[in-house]
Amino acid sequence: MVNGIERPLDLLNASKGKEVLVQLKGDKQFVGTLVAFDIHVNVVLDNAKEMENGEVKKNIGITFLRGDTIIFISPASTTSLNK
Amino acid sequence: MVNGIERPLDLLNASKGKEVLVQLKGDKQFVGTLVAFDIHVNVVLDNAKEMENGEVKKNIGITFLRGDTIIFISPASTTSLNK
Amino acid sequence: MVNGIERPLDLLNASKGKEVLVQLKGDKQFVGTLVAFDIHVNVVLDNAKEMENGEVKKNIGITFLRGDTIIFISPASTTSLNK
Amino acid sequence: MVNGIERPLDLLNASKGKEVLVQLKGDKQFVGTLVAFDIHVNVVLDNAKEMENGEVKKNIGITFLRGDTIIFISPASTTSLNK
Amino acid sequence: MVNGIERPLDLLNASKGKEVLVQLKGDKQFVGTLVAFDIHVNVVLDNAKEMENGEVKKNIGITFLRGDTIIFISPASTTSLNK
Amino acid sequence: MVNGIERPLDLLNASKGKEVLVQLKGDKQFVGTLVAFDIHVNVVLDNAKEMENGEVKKNIGITFLRGDTIIFISPASTTSLNK
Amino acid sequence: MVNGIERPLDLLNASKGKEVLVQLKGDKQFVGTLVAFDIHVNVVLDNAKEMENGEVKKNIGITFLRGDTIIFISPASTTSLNK
Repeated sequence: MVNGIERPLDLLNASKGKEVLVQLKGDKQFVGTLVAFDIHVNVVLDNAKEMENGEVKKNIGITFLRGDTIIFISPASTTSLNK
Repeated sequence: MVNGIERPLDLLNASKGKEVLVQLKGDKQFVGTLVAFDIHVNVVLDNAKEMENGEVKKNIGITFLRGDTIIFISPASTTSLNK
Repeated sequence: MVNGIERPLDLLNASKGKEVLVQLKGDKQFVGTLVAFDIHVNVVLDNAKEMENGEVKKNIGITFLRGDTIIFISPASTTSLNK
Repeated sequence: MVNGIERPLDLLNASKGKEVLVQLKGDKQFVGTLVAFDIHVNVVLDNAKEMENGEVKKNIGITFLRGDTIIFISPASTTSLNK
Repeated sequence: MVNGIERPLDLLNASKGKEVLVQLKGDKQFVGTLVAFDIHVNVVLDNAKEMENGEVKKNIGITFLRGDTIIFISPASTTSLNK
Repeated sequence: MVNGIERPLDLLNASKGKEVLVQLKGDKQFVGTLVAFDIHVNVVLDNAKEMENGEVKKNIGITFLRGDTIIFISPASTTSLNK
Repeated sequence: MVNGIERPLDLLNASKGKEVLVQLKGDKQFVGTLVAFDIHVNVVLDNAKEMENGEVKKNIGITFLRGDTIIFISPASTTSLNK
């Protein structure tokens, strides 16, 4: 997936329509389909789930996440979601 | 609801006049009708309620929420409000 | 009060001369008459009172509040000030 | 004192040469004569005193306070300095 | 490796395609191959691993890290990864 | 010293070459000769000393202090350095 | 070393190629040779060592430190590294 990634946001662009893991400050974690993002790293996830210790804590549906609370975003296919 | 969402703020635009759940830093949570928002993600909610563990803690009425304290905003129809 | 609110700051404009509740980070809460605000959400309140658990803790008189410590601002008439 | 206050900084302008109470984040509180301020809400106080529970903890003399640590500024004449 | 480093980002440029250690605020630590970075110090790591006390806690795969949570970035070849 | 102070940074300009007390967030305190400052309130102190409860904890020599950690700066001649 | 320091960054420029002590927020401390810096006070240190109570905790090698976590930077020759 590294091919074609020149700038960090290229990874987000390549992840549109795919499941991603979003780690927030304060230990919140979401999994969902990446629908949109902007240069502030604000994102929209569809079928979002709040996770806790690898288990679904809450179904959030579609959601807008503000960029400044985000630590990292990973395509879920490459990530082990269970600790 | 994903159709037509190119940028994250498109979800907020599509949610105007609908009930949304707003999660703030420091574990505060509000439910209310989304009246307005701007690029700083400042929002106005009508019939706002402060929530705690899925129950109404306080009726706030119409309220202005500063964007920089917001973690996520979800249309309430797609969200399970109870833990 | 929703009529005419296109942008979040329109609610503050409609609240000038009226009593508002201002919630700050760190659980401080003020009630007072909204005199002025700017785009940073700096505000001036007149007859400001610092509140604690719905009771007046301290009379502050007229005061300047810096926007970046503000979580939400609500017209007091629509808000239950007591928990 | 409300007359002529169109923008929040007008209150600071009207308070020049007068004693003000400055509340900082982290519960620090200063009382002193407002000498100068700028749009970042940096201020200079003369005869500044650090206060604790309504009592003078320390005489600071003339001091420069950075705006981003300030929560509120009130003309002391309208404020009860004692809890 | 110091040769040719005129500005701090030159070190990141020289580290592309190499393994780096990324220390985040809140004691999170990642090791991975530096794929991309930008002026906000947002980075993309491939084969990223979350580390704890010098041991792999979790495989993250390819990941986007927001710059504002980053404390330092070091080429792993020059760093002792074990405490 | 108030004469000629129109803007907050004028106090810093008038304090160049003099001993100042710099209070940082997180209760760190420095005393030293103010050599230089800029609009971000970054400062250089010479003969800097880290203070704790009015006593010298550590001699730092000449030092660069980043503005965003600074709470206040006072000319030492007007300040009681002992609690 | 004060001669020729008109602006705070002049001290960093005069310290290039010399050993400096970098104090970070959250009590982390690094010693290393200053290779580069920019206006955000991002820095590159060579032969960097993480220090704890005046002792080397970890050798980091060459490292990029983000400016916004930095409290102060001092030329090591003028600083007592031991408490």
